[in-house]
Amino acid sequence: MSATVQRLSGHQPSLDPMIHLVADDMNQVNAAIVDRMQSDIPLIPELANHLIGSGGKRMRPMLTLASARLLNYDGGRHYGLAAAVEFIHTATLLHDDVVDGSDLRRGKRTANIIWGNPASVLVGDFLFSRSFELMVEAGSLSALKILSNASAVIAEGEVNQLTAARRVDLGEDRYLEIINAKTAALFAAACRIAAVVADRPESEEAALDAYGRNLGIAFQLVDDAIDYTSDAGTMGKDAGDDFREGKMTLPVILAYARGSEEQRQFWKDAVEGRRDSDADFAHAIELVRSTRAVDDTIARARHYGQRAIEAIAPFADGTAKDAMIEAVEFAVARVY
Amino acid sequence: MSATVQRLSGHQPSLDPMIHLVADDMNQVNAAIVDRMQSDIPLIPELANHLIGSGGKRMRPMLTLASARLLNYDGGRHYGLAAAVEFIHTATLLHDDVVDGSDLRRGKRTANIIWGNPASVLVGDFLFSRSFELMVEAGSLSALKILSNASAVIAEGEVNQLTAARRVDLGEDRYLEIINAKTAALFAAACRIAAVVADRPESEEAALDAYGRNLGIAFQLVDDAIDYTSDAGTMGKDAGDDFREGKMTLPVILAYARGSEEQRQFWKDAVEGRRDSDADFAHAIELVRSTRAVDDTIARARHYGQRAIEAIAPFADGTAKDAMIEAVEFAVARVY
Repeated sequence: MSATVQRLSGHQPSLDPMIHLVADDMNQVNAAIVDRMQSDIPLIPELANHLIGSGGKRMRPMLTLASARLLNYDGGRHYGLAAAVEFIHTATLLHDDVVDGSDLRRGKRTANIIWGNPASVLVGDFLFSRSFELMVEAGSLSALKILSNASAVIAEGEVNQLTAARRVDLGEDRYLEIINAKTAALFAAACRIAAVVADRPESEEAALDAYGRNLGIAFQLVDDAIDYTSDAGTMGKDAGDDFREGKMTLPVILAYARGSEEQRQFWKDAVEGRRDSDADFAHAIELVRSTRAVDDTIARARHYGQRAIEAIAPFADGTAKDAMIEAVEFAVARVY
Repeated sequence: MSATVQRLSGHQPSLDPMIHLVADDMNQVNAAIVDRMQSDIPLIPELANHLIGSGGKRMRPMLTLASARLLNYDGGRHYGLAAAVEFIHTATLLHDDVVDGSDLRRGKRTANIIWGNPASVLVGDFLFSRSFELMVEAGSLSALKILSNASAVIAEGEVNQLTAARRVDLGEDRYLEIINAKTAALFAAACRIAAVVADRPESEEAALDAYGRNLGIAFQLVDDAIDYTSDAGTMGKDAGDDFREGKMTLPVILAYARGSEEQRQFWKDAVEGRRDSDADFAHAIELVRSTRAVDDTIARARHYGQRAIEAIAPFADGTAKDAMIEAVEFAVARVY
């Protein structure tokens, strides 16, 4: 498609340096996660583990841990908070799948399909409550404030998205508002809390918040773009899922804005659920290419990626910073 | 049915003394509730207000306020916490109605019927998140711990109830375990946090916890009994709702345990959804009467009511204590 991202070292950017950086810490977080999803009610760990143990990247707790490394924090208060962040994320996914009626996630049948919507709603509530118990145990009111605010913003973003569903004229600004709330707020909070437990000045909190927020937006935009490329194997979701669900994402918003009368009608039909065949999807790919909607979605992602990298420029160089920079490069390079 | 509850003063017990006791404080709580359910996403206050503004008794925040009065607490830190308690309760009701597929609550159509399940799930999540924001603002880690724990216990109880659904052989102990978690935990926490903000010793915290917990169980058991009486007007729900939904409640558990082979088959059929006509309900009422299942459900409720009253015996006499005692008497007398 367009130009490839090339690091000076010449290799493809990867998440591996960050995974390696936090590997030991992540064992602590995983222990907290496994410990705190237990319950005397067998359905709870069974259902929770279906999602938590399904090989997600643990991107958000990883960001807490990497941020703590960047700050040379050597305490242990962030492990429980990182687990709390993953619980918030998991609860959100469980409820999302109920709301969207999804049947596949990370290549597996969703919990709502296996155990039903009621169980997914209630186990989501349980994990959400447990996340607050974990936060309370960490003992930081500031971290609690950041994460409870992020939770409210996420829920608000979800409702915003729900009311925006199937509206082809959504517009880029409203869309960015939605993904800022739905995705970027938790990325931002995950990074920011590292500065809180490390007792760093507000400027460093804000810098890590900006890193996480911009990375979160970049991640989401690339996810949106991947749905309109045929090579979607890397993501664990199938190309065309968003299209078939009539989801409003940035490629659609741009293609609609730039399209002819006839093309706009096609997008309207698609978003309102009247176009979901393979031929329709092939036509959609053609349109997002000819209007450069995917290329420009990636360009937007790069813009936010660049801002993420610049946000952590003031911190000392080292393996943590390198890993955090490469994580951004990985995020925006995934589509190619 | 059985003997009436008579106070020395001779009048029917009422919630009015408690309502009167906390009227001024409740204005503060209501202001916090209205303020914090606002959002730029119009669906959120619209849906939240449908339930919050629908004339519920605000029983749980009222208990926080009454407990604070009992302790002569004259600060204002409990207003936000009382609002948080109501938000947790409201979020739970929204999700409950989705889980049960209910269409009526407090005599109105439920939010899930009007706005759909997705909106109810997400606005519930929003209120739940907001409740934690309110708690963080109150600034008490101890209160946060109590309420986050209560939330997790409630969610666990909901899942427990879900896995127990339509099991006619549930048993009294497991049922008490469920209502302890689903209902009594939040009553207990609502009372206990008053002692926390008033900075009282652990023994007073425990006493208020016991008052709330036993009152909560008594309330629930009387609710269960009311469903099998014809005079259900006082509750805002119709007699027979539980029966028609095949809900396992104490009257059913007792009637099943005491029934003949034939009667047990009837209850099994009812709980499994094969008996929900008016004639079936009439027969059910006959059975809970002849087996004294309703009378003994009320007797159990009285037992817990008595324990609630005894729990606050050590506190100084006065209007607050009188109101709290009469609230218990009201709870167990509602059925007559």
